[in-house]
Amino acid sequence: MRILTAADLEDIAFGAAVLGTGGGGDPYIGKLLARTAMERNGPVTLIGLDEVPDGAHVITCGAMGAPTIVLEKVPSGDEMLMALQYYEKTTGHRVTHIMPFEAGGLNSCYPIVLAAQTGLPLIDADGMGRAFPQLEMETFNVYGVPAAPVAMADEKGNLALVETDSAAKAEFIARGICIRMGGQASLVNYGMDGATARRVSVPATMTLAQDIGRVVREAHAAHVQPIDALVDFLRTTHYGHAERIGSGKVTDIARRFENGWSVGVVTITPFDDGAPYSIRIQNENLVIEREDEVLAVVPDLICVLDLDTAEAIPTERLRYGQRVDILGIRVPPIMRTPEALAVFGPRAFGLKAEYRPLGL
Amino acid sequence: MRILTAADLEDIAFGAAVLGTGGGGDPYIGKLLARTAMERNGPVTLIGLDEVPDGAHVITCGAMGAPTIVLEKVPSGDEMLMALQYYEKTTGHRVTHIMPFEAGGLNSCYPIVLAAQTGLPLIDADGMGRAFPQLEMETFNVYGVPAAPVAMADEKGNLALVETDSAAKAEFIARGICIRMGGQASLVNYGMDGATARRVSVPATMTLAQDIGRVVREAHAAHVQPIDALVDFLRTTHYGHAERIGSGKVTDIARRFENGWSVGVVTITPFDDGAPYSIRIQNENLVIEREDEVLAVVPDLICVLDLDTAEAIPTERLRYGQRVDILGIRVPPIMRTPEALAVFGPRAFGLKAEYRPLGL
Repeated sequence: MRILTAADLEDIAFGAAVLGTGGGGDPYIGKLLARTAMERNGPVTLIGLDEVPDGAHVITCGAMGAPTIVLEKVPSGDEMLMALQYYEKTTGHRVTHIMPFEAGGLNSCYPIVLAAQTGLPLIDADGMGRAFPQLEMETFNVYGVPAAPVAMADEKGNLALVETDSAAKAEFIARGICIRMGGQASLVNYGMDGATARRVSVPATMTLAQDIGRVVREAHAAHVQPIDALVDFLRTTHYGHAERIGSGKVTDIARRFENGWSVGVVTITPFDDGAPYSIRIQNENLVIEREDEVLAVVPDLICVLDLDTAEAIPTERLRYGQRVDILGIRVPPIMRTPEALAVFGPRAFGLKAEYRPLGL
Repeated sequence: MRILTAADLEDIAFGAAVLGTGGGGDPYIGKLLARTAMERNGPVTLIGLDEVPDGAHVITCGAMGAPTIVLEKVPSGDEMLMALQYYEKTTGHRVTHIMPFEAGGLNSCYPIVLAAQTGLPLIDADGMGRAFPQLEMETFNVYGVPAAPVAMADEKGNLALVETDSAAKAEFIARGICIRMGGQASLVNYGMDGATARRVSVPATMTLAQDIGRVVREAHAAHVQPIDALVDFLRTTHYGHAERIGSGKVTDIARRFENGWSVGVVTITPFDDGAPYSIRIQNENLVIEREDEVLAVVPDLICVLDLDTAEAIPTERLRYGQRVDILGIRVPPIMRTPEALAVFGPRAFGLKAEYRPLGL
């Protein structure tokens, strides 16, 4: 157990953007929301998965939608609380613990906002170990937790609840609602008890995000190349492996809003004018290829980082001419089982590539 | 108070199809569902608006979606009950009375199904006095009843609940859910107390539907022209006026599924080859014109009836070559106030025509 204060947010937001692998929403906005919530309500208690009592009623939370939309349709900061209250009111459950459903981007910060607003403890874990674009792509679902009921809220106070026995159907219906809520909605779902939470979650990902931020910050202070420091650090975590896939300049970006997601292709040309890297995105970076060779693919993380600062660039902020490093991170074992790959491996995204874990 | 039995269904379904003004869903399927529910659960108690106690908790119900879809995606018969149970479970209200939200088509029969299944009394009234394509187009909304919470169910058991402070927003979000539920969903909403129900509802529309069926049936037996009998009868009701607008042959029908509705234009050419009638549809028949002259427009009813049988032809069953009468029916005064016309007059459908009540 430890206390999170506003001073921790900078590193968390930095690391969450890296874990966002291009998606998960803009962490800058998330940081501002979390700071405001902490200023108003005080700090947040962060507890490890092993500290969650069996009988806890855990909910997971985060935002759904296309990250591009957050740039314009700024959250009010109360959506997550409204979704939680709607969840409690309609299901009759009394929530005792909060967990992010996604460790990446904005969605690392929303649960901090909610924990500050409610005073409930925040669990240092999540269900993606990164960001994914769909609600069923959760270790919670992989290991048997029902995705529904799903409580949803938008910044205008519109609310919705979805009940269905399939996580894919929950995604499909909730996505429809999200689109009608303007392309962004706050969600509370995957309610479960504490014993289940310990079994089905990716551990310590809030701390991982914070560590990523800290390592890069310290590298800058020590005049060490930050991405090298990051690679070294990540190899010591339960993720186990990271590597620099390549470097270059963003030379093309084709991106559109489709079915409620940002989808497209990013082209990065190496500085030696060699064959370009091509990254397919659906909110997140899904696969990177070069001359028909797959260099990395979901669920492994593909992170586009600013060459100088190692700051992650979310897909909606990619621009022609940016100079970037491409970092690959292998996911931890809980995300590489056959059951897990069936839910968020290449096939789940309609990709033909075979999953081969980075560094193995 | 009177008892509805399976013997009443034939006339009700016939009349409901007429009041459906082309929409409201196929009454044949509704009749089969209602008959099955009555066979399993017994008859239904129908009560007048003036018999509803002040403290009743009334809900209204019906199906949302494009009528075309019911032809393929046949209801299971339990959707309405699932929506009701979800409404009760999530809101904590105990429902005491059931009212149709729409007097037309399939949506006259669904509440009979629900009343049979629950044993709750059915109120002889509705919120449209006909069929309309949108959830906010209800006298309930016109006279101040919140449209939400909206409980929704589909035939596979998927459930959703919508909470919002605007009826138009409830329509927008629920329509998005309906599309994701396959284009058809069962709804329970417009919860209100008995005193409110008496103030805001269009009275006696279930009896009106049944009387329409009876009058046509008796006309056939007496070898009287059924549409003439219908016009004479309707002039004696609280609707006050009906007329034969024209007759002819369906010579063109352009219809597509758009944003969850069936929309299009029907052309009917008179037998004397005079200028054709043109009817614009959005699930229902909205406006009929001939050589730029508006002959009737919403909220008044435009009903396309088989020339020989006076059976209403819903828009999804219109075919080239059908020989039809076009019947216009004026709506009752509660549906012609300025507040009512703001919600379901021509402007609400984006039509330029001015509303002039038929026969006035």
